[in-house]
This record gives sequence, C-alpha cells and structure tokens, in this order.
Amino acid sequence: MRVNVAGAYSTKFGKHPESSARELLTDACLGALEDADVSPVEIDGIHVGNFMGELTDDQGHMGVMTADYLGTTGVPATRSESACASSGWAVREAAQAVESGTADVALVAGVEMMHATGIERLTDALANAADNEYENSCGLTFPGIFALIARDYMDEFGVTREELAEVTVKNRANGVDNPIAQYQEGVTVDDVLEARPIAPPVGMLDSCPITDGASAVLLVSPEYADENGLDAPASVVGSGASSASLALQDRDVLSRTRAAERAAERAYEHAGVAPEDVDVAEVHDCFTIAEILAVESLGFFERGEGAYAAVEGETAPDGRIPVNTSGGLIAKGHPVGATGVAQVVELAKQIEGEHPTQVEGAETAVAHNVGGSGASTTVHVLQAEGAGGGS
Amino acid sequence: MRVNVAGAYSTKFGKHPESSARELLTDACLGALEDADVSPVEIDGIHVGNFMGELTDDQGHMGVMTADYLGTTGVPATRSESACASSGWAVREAAQAVESGTADVALVAGVEMMHATGIERLTDALANAADNEYENSCGLTFPGIFALIARDYMDEFGVTREELAEVTVKNRANGVDNPIAQYQEGVTVDDVLEARPIAPPVGMLDSCPITDGASAVLLVSPEYADENGLDAPASVVGSGASSASLALQDRDVLSRTRAAERAAERAYEHAGVAPEDVDVAEVHDCFTIAEILAVESLGFFERGEGAYAAVEGETAPDGRIPVNTSGGLIAKGHPVGATGVAQVVELAKQIEGEHPTQVEGAETAVAHNVGGSGASTTVHVLQAEGAGGGS
Repeated sequence: MRVNVAGAYSTKFGKHPESSARELLTDACLGALEDADVSPVEIDGIHVGNFMGELTDDQGHMGVMTADYLGTTGVPATRSESACASSGWAVREAAQAVESGTADVALVAGVEMMHATGIERLTDALANAADNEYENSCGLTFPGIFALIARDYMDEFGVTREELAEVTVKNRANGVDNPIAQYQEGVTVDDVLEARPIAPPVGMLDSCPITDGASAVLLVSPEYADENGLDAPASVVGSGASSASLALQDRDVLSRTRAAERAAERAYEHAGVAPEDVDVAEVHDCFTIAEILAVESLGFFERGEGAYAAVEGETAPDGRIPVNTSGGLIAKGHPVGATGVAQVVELAKQIEGEHPTQVEGAETAVAHNVGGSGASTTVHVLQAEGAGGGS
Repeated sequence: MRVNVAGAYSTKFGKHPESSARELLTDACLGALEDADVSPVEIDGIHVGNFMGELTDDQGHMGVMTADYLGTTGVPATRSESACASSGWAVREAAQAVESGTADVALVAGVEMMHATGIERLTDALANAADNEYENSCGLTFPGIFALIARDYMDEFGVTREELAEVTVKNRANGVDNPIAQYQEGVTVDDVLEARPIAPPVGMLDSCPITDGASAVLLVSPEYADENGLDAPASVVGSGASSASLALQDRDVLSRTRAAERAAERAYEHAGVAPEDVDVAEVHDCFTIAEILAVESLGFFERGEGAYAAVEGETAPDGRIPVNTSGGLIAKGHPVGATGVAQVVELAKQIEGEHPTQVEGAETAVAHNVGGSGASTTVHVLQAEGAGGGS
C-alpha cells in the first residue's frame, strides 16, 4: 500500500464551548485541504470517525453532515464507529478506498465534543464502548476497567505506581511544545501520585482528559499527487486491524492486548517493515497502563519491559523509540472520535520534519488506536518517500 | 465488480422484547453462514450497520460485539453509520474489501432494536438522522419531513393521497407471503386513507412500522467460492453512493432525491447496466412518497410518473419492474440499521429463484437504501452468474 498524506490538520484540543461538532469538523477539514493546497471540489470520498455524537450532540449521520458543511454534497460520505478507534477505522477505510481506486482524493476526519455533556452523562456515554450487558450494567466504567488491567500487570511484573507515572511525566513534557495540546505544562512523578484517585491505581493524572477537538487528513493516490504537483512526503504504507472480546471477563489475560498485537503484525506485514524499523510512534495512552501495553503490543519491548520504557528514557524524544512526541492522549487530549486521525496528523509532521518535538531522521512511523478496553485496534504504518518497505 | 453472495438470512422482523441487539445480530449472522455452508472461522472481515445502538441499547462498538458473539475475535470488525442507510454502507464497504483483496470472506450484518425504546424517545432518536441544529431543534421529525416532501410532489404533479396509498396496498400485498414480514395482511386504499393521520398527507399506513430485526449476508470472492465449491448464484456487481444536504432547507427542490439519482448513476456505470436491464428492485419505502421518489431516481420512471407506477400495476410482482416484492419497509418492517442488508437478502433470493414472491427470470436486481430525508443513499446492483454487465 502507498497512499499519500497530502494534507493534515488538527484544531486546538481542549474546551470549545462556543462550537458544535460540525464547526470543529469543518475547521479541521478546511485546514487539511489548505495544507494540501487542494480544493474541496476534488474530494471523491469522505470518511468521518465519531463515537458518541448521538449522545453528546443529538446528531448522527456525520459523514453526510461533513460533506454538507464543506459544500461537497454529492460525494460518498459515511461515518465509522469503533468506539475510541473510530477514526483509526476511518483512516483504514479511506486508505483502502484510495488504494483500490474507488477514490483518488479521500478526506478523513474525526471529531468528538465531550465537555458540554457533563462528567456523569459522559462517563455513561463512554461506557457504550464496553459490554453493556456484562460490564456497564455491573457499574464498571473505563477508569475501573483500566485499573483492573493495571493491577493485573503490576502484580504480574512487580511494577510500581511510580513507574506507571513516568508515562505521564514524559507525555506531559512532550505536550509543552505542541500548540494544539490541551495541557502544555509539565508534571512530576509526585504530581501524578498526589493527584486525585479515580480508580486506584488510576489517578487523575494517569488518565487522559476530557476533550473537544477535530482532526483531518487528506489521502490521495500517488498518481493524483504527481499529476497535481502535490507535496506529500508521508504515505500510509500499511494498515492492520483486529478485534478481541468486548468484555474483560472473556480475555485469557488482562495484561496484554491481543487485538493490538494482531493488528500490529498485520500492519507490519502489509507495509513490509519490522518493529525495529520504526522511528517514532503515536500510541493510544488513554491511561498510563495503556501506553505500556501499546509499546509491548507493537513489538518495541518484551512483555513486562514496557513499564520501564518511559522510566529509562527509551520512549523519550531522544530515546531508542520515541513514543507520543505529540503529548499523546494524556497531554494532547483525547476527543475520542478524532484521536486516530490526530495521530496520523502528528506522524505526517514528523515525517515532513516539521514537528514541534521533531525526531531526527524520522522516516517510518506507527499509529496505534484502540477502541474500548482493547476490543478493537487499528495500526497504521506511515513512511517517507523513498524509505524502505511500502510493498 | 463481482463479489459473490454466498449466504443470506434475515430474522423475523417485528417485536422481539425477549432479545437484545447482540442476540438478533448473532442469529442473523449464523443464519447467513449456515445458508452459505461456511464456518465462522473462515470470516476475515466483519461490517455491521447500526444506526441508534447508543440510544436504544446503550451499546456502541457493535462491529467488535458481533465478532465476539460469533466467536471470531481477531477478525477486523467495525460499524458503519449513515442513518437509515447504515447497512447499505456496510454492504458497500464489505464488497469493496472483497473486491480489493483485503478480505476473501466478509460478513455484513445490520440490526436495529426499536420497540423497547418507546415511541417518544424513539422519534427523538430517529431525528439524529436529520440536521439537529436546523431541523430537530425546530421540532421537525421524520413524518413531518416526508409530509413536506410529499406535499411538494403532490402539488407539482397533481397527485392525490389515493395514488400515494397504492404503494402501501401493493407492498402490504407483497408482504403476505414473506415469512419474515412484520405485516402479513393486505390493506385497501380506504384502509390507508382512514388510518390515523401522523403528519398529513402522511398517515399511519403511509409509514413503515417500528421494527426490531437483523439481517446478514456473507460476501466472498469468486475465487474463494470456486475453491470451496460454494453455491452463490447472485453477486454484487456494482456499488454507488452519494450525499445531499442534511437539511431540507438547503435542497434545490424537495420532490427529487439527488443523492439517490447520483448513487444510481454510479452503481449502473460500475455494473455496466442500465435501468431497463433491471428485473426487480428493493427500494427504501419508509413512507409511500419515498418509494415514488425512489423509482424515479433509479430511472425506472420519469419525474412525476412514479406516482402512477403502483396505481397502474407497473411495480407489481407481474409488472414491468417489480418493486419491493418483499413487502418493502412498509410491510416487511424497517429495523433501520438492518434494512440495507435485508434488501440484499431478498434480492439474492430473487436471483436464486427462491423468493416467496418470485419474479420469473430475475437476473438483475437493484437495492436502494436511503439515510435521513435522502441525505445519503447507497445503490447496489446484483446479478446472476452469466447475466450481462458486471464489468
């Protein structure tokens, strides 16, 4: 697969009480089009990722809504929903549409509006990603789910809360220079440990914040880019997706994310690369434990070693495999339906050499987007023009 | 495009107070697999259409849920949402996945659970398909939207309520022999005119009922079907999709469905067929006026002539172009997220020669699935092995 990323844009992530989903979506889409220097009339496919629009905005049908507000009615337009991996799926479907020739110019966008809903209704809304009959109905919501996962991992590998906290310290430091990040101030391990507990060992600063935001990328065929003289140094060269049981109770082990492992294996194979070829990654750190499982699932660290990645600086911007140079979900913020696209926005900038926390020589990049407690995962490999792989 | 329909199944449409979405989805999927004589372990892609699961079942993430309950975790699985065209989109994405080689065996399923929600909350939930800011917030819901469309059409072409009612009379007659249909009793024009008004000229019997139900089809590559000796007489040979403005106010005219016109044009071109090649169609008759606009958009009748199609028997099972031999949404029922797949189930049976209201020599068939008031539409062309077209 080789599908060019011709343009990429994220709105500021944070609180947008003055906006609705359609406004942020339109801002993100116009930003990506402007970045690509492509007119909206060129678009021949729209894929929108959104998780909870019916619950937060009383609005479904967001694929068409996006086409409408861009002035591009007539274009095939739909929405993908796979919980917090909704726009990872939108990227996958758009890339496949371009790869197969169904579209030459596919716009992928993601959005979520979370603040206006209020924390109680929002927690209920987010629980739609879990198993309603066997998890939510018993009172289990996501902080509790990830607390169970974290506890299992900590018990198995003798990991401490201090070690988990290093993920937040790294990601908050990375967020400082990212202009779109919700949090642009660093924190210490003590700050993380002393923050309000939510579901121990998960505290407020082990968790991503509540975020409004939208992101978009314009994917085009290499032929279209050539013919139109587009500057598109980064390409999607591999896509993998997989699923696992919706409820924790049906997993063989809590402390590994099988869907992510399989999605990564497929994406690497599709791209013709190996984990050791990867220069930079954006992973789904909805909680500190989630980044640890991610770097293991992606093959960067052995099981039980992921916990020491941030502690030892291996995932720092100057480490062996920089992870979440954007600040990740923990600092950049996590408008759930936008996150999968937002990761691609950040990685395209890394490959272009224009990231605020630039990794020198970044040529091969990986985006890892998770739905629910790991029940769905998409993994995408991006590469620079002329880099190895990209079969 | 040539993607074989190896298996097809719909649950009974109607009231299922004892079931939840996951149960009907699983029943439909197992039915399609059994019809195909294919084991679930063969599936390498799952595409689920659902519109309102978050509002009716407190459940999102239904792609993964389906994989989970089928025992096929590991398979890439997602949900498509495009309002009432959600599973038309799921068919489109699954067919593209098979066509492009991403999957050899793609399961498409659709579901909606509508009864348990209660009419008031359900009407609100359905309104998520319209423009929340410019339509719902003004109190406009779907019966009112289609009443405006009907009134505009009636005024323009001098059409009467009696003529609209003939659509219901035909479809209710067709539903009598369909074992899955919600309504299996015929009605007269007088019954339709005397039924309780909802939003005049739309009355209770001009409208599809509230329905629980699920449908599934198994799509496979011709190579897979050959290698595994599968019996798959019907294939998807063309797919078209398009969009129009979400709100009525932004349309140039209410009495035609531009998204459907464009989707049909693309699907015919993709399949290499013309409207006059079509032997049988399932169209989105959520209201009587909707079938009239559908048969015009699909090119079976000129504008203004669609109203006389049912009156003159042209869309009857023995007419020039039989439409909704299943009973359509009006008699079969309209579990919104299942409807697009359910249409393909019915048409596959027509092509196999095993439909309860069989159209003799049915070789080329069209499915037309609409989201909202026509803001999104998918059109699929199915053909028998060896029929013309199918480029």
